[in-house]
Amino acid sequence: MISNPRPSLSVPVAPASLVTAAVAGDRRALARLLSVIERGGDAADVAAIAVHEHVRQPYTIGLTGAPGAGKSTLSDALVAQSRSRGEPIAVVAIDPSSPFTGGAILGDRVRLRSDHGGDDGIFLRSVASRGHLGGLARAVPEIVRAVGAAGWPTVLIETVGVGQSELGIASQADTTVVMVTPGWGDDVQANKAGLLEIADVLVVNKADREGAPAAVRDLRRMLDLALPGKWRPDIVTTVATQDIGVPAVWDAVAAHRVHLERSGELGRRRAERVINEVNERIVAGVVAEVAATLHSKKGLDLLDKVRDRTIAPAAAVRTLLTMLRRTEDPGPRS
Amino acid sequence: MISNPRPSLSVPVAPASLVTAAVAGDRRALARLLSVIERGGDAADVAAIAVHEHVRQPYTIGLTGAPGAGKSTLSDALVAQSRSRGEPIAVVAIDPSSPFTGGAILGDRVRLRSDHGGDDGIFLRSVASRGHLGGLARAVPEIVRAVGAAGWPTVLIETVGVGQSELGIASQADTTVVMVTPGWGDDVQANKAGLLEIADVLVVNKADREGAPAAVRDLRRMLDLALPGKWRPDIVTTVATQDIGVPAVWDAVAAHRVHLERSGELGRRRAERVINEVNERIVAGVVAEVAATLHSKKGLDLLDKVRDRTIAPAAAVRTLLTMLRRTEDPGPRS
Repeated sequence: MISNPRPSLSVPVAPASLVTAAVAGDRRALARLLSVIERGGDAADVAAIAVHEHVRQPYTIGLTGAPGAGKSTLSDALVAQSRSRGEPIAVVAIDPSSPFTGGAILGDRVRLRSDHGGDDGIFLRSVASRGHLGGLARAVPEIVRAVGAAGWPTVLIETVGVGQSELGIASQADTTVVMVTPGWGDDVQANKAGLLEIADVLVVNKADREGAPAAVRDLRRMLDLALPGKWRPDIVTTVATQDIGVPAVWDAVAAHRVHLERSGELGRRRAERVINEVNERIVAGVVAEVAATLHSKKGLDLLDKVRDRTIAPAAAVRTLLTMLRRTEDPGPRS
Repeated sequence: MISNPRPSLSVPVAPASLVTAAVAGDRRALARLLSVIERGGDAADVAAIAVHEHVRQPYTIGLTGAPGAGKSTLSDALVAQSRSRGEPIAVVAIDPSSPFTGGAILGDRVRLRSDHGGDDGIFLRSVASRGHLGGLARAVPEIVRAVGAAGWPTVLIETVGVGQSELGIASQADTTVVMVTPGWGDDVQANKAGLLEIADVLVVNKADREGAPAAVRDLRRMLDLALPGKWRPDIVTTVATQDIGVPAVWDAVAAHRVHLERSGELGRRRAERVINEVNERIVAGVVAEVAATLHSKKGLDLLDKVRDRTIAPAAAVRTLLTMLRRTEDPGPRS
């Protein structure tokens, strides 16, 4: 018989004891705790509330950019950079699918990542979005808090694409690094604008390619149009595959961090973010309750009557809002 | 003393008696009923529920297009067209501001509109959005139902701009007429696509200008890319200021109506729309309740505790959701 080296994840453990073990440095407990948080529901809330007792807010770095910009390569290089400076680092990679089905790209990831294997100063968590990025986006702050409670001082949050939810996830970091490549042309201007808006550090990767100086000039010109008084992102050129420029990216992140800390903006931005987080989770929670109410027997009956004009829409709205206020169960995870 | 010819709107009248009078043909009562509906709140719900007893769903025509496309001119021409065919028509104009402060454009409107003055077969309602188009968009279906209950068989709904809410309002009509002009260039492709998607009839206005045949070709090419099986909008060229092409627009609307009625799609689309309406009003209602809860004394205290990390965000979310379920008052109008 071949023994299974992976621990069984099916034994139920109380979230609170997972938190205690994770805080004490048990990496496996942290991994299981993150799974509980990802799954959502009551257990996730209990875990998050237990995590809060141990909160040490880590510094978060978001890494995003168009597909093919070389995000995973730079991510790996930044991890190596952090380690060469003696700093432990955790990575939360938002993958569009499970690592077990993700094909070539994620195959590469596993190979690259295994170069760090055995280093206790690295914690890697791949979070599969399974097509429900909105819910995942809401779980990321809890994941970051849990990783911080387990003692990781820095968390690199890496997204694969540049969809709205992914930009949202990356822009929630303390420092957001946006990657572009030379020749990333005018046809994606709008996209580019959305990315520029959230960038604290700009990286022009694949800078050994034709068009790199033009890309830098292009970005500078766009930054010149930004509002005065706003942080002006450094532009760093890299060839991530050859580790060229990576220390400069790390230094640019550090410079932005110093700026945030000295100006007091770090505290203000974090306070604002956590309030937004609560707002969004409440709205998501009530929207889920609305959906549940509309799909209940009584809700469906009412909608049938609206459809065949037996009752007025306004009457249905009033009845449904009253039903909602009487909801007893807390509804799906916000 | 100068006597005031305008009736006072300040005398409170029960919504139900306004409905009775409006249904009996009292235009002034209809105008006051629409004001009650526009203002929202409990009285609007009571009025809408009373209106429902008398529902005769009018046929609705949405008219939209980029600013400067000539919507108000075509709207006036279509009204004249309808009257020349002996058909009464009501117009609901969504104006970006009150007609009393709207300046030149609305000055023009009043002049043009007054040409119809004294015709009992025309009912004109200008709805000022006052910067809150989302709430207005939700009131439009109730306004249409009230106008229908008062006996108007056709309602032309005219929007000024092409913002999301305005496109939403126009696309909720049974037949949506989208206006473009020659030279409406490639820089608005995205916008154009959004407009094409909702068009049941396409009008190229100012067709005496250079570029009109090219605009028609351009539109045809884009329609060729649409999914097969979908209704293919007629393209009508007009010079609305000279009344050229207006009968053809009216005929195209009539042809689309026949298509909807024969295919059974009219009933299906209306049923779907009224369900969407109920969904949107409920979500807006609960979102308003969320805002009220977050701004209550207890809500603000909780958010303060989240901000200074005294309590976990997940704990605050749970408490706030519980508070929401205990809300007694129905909250602001949905």
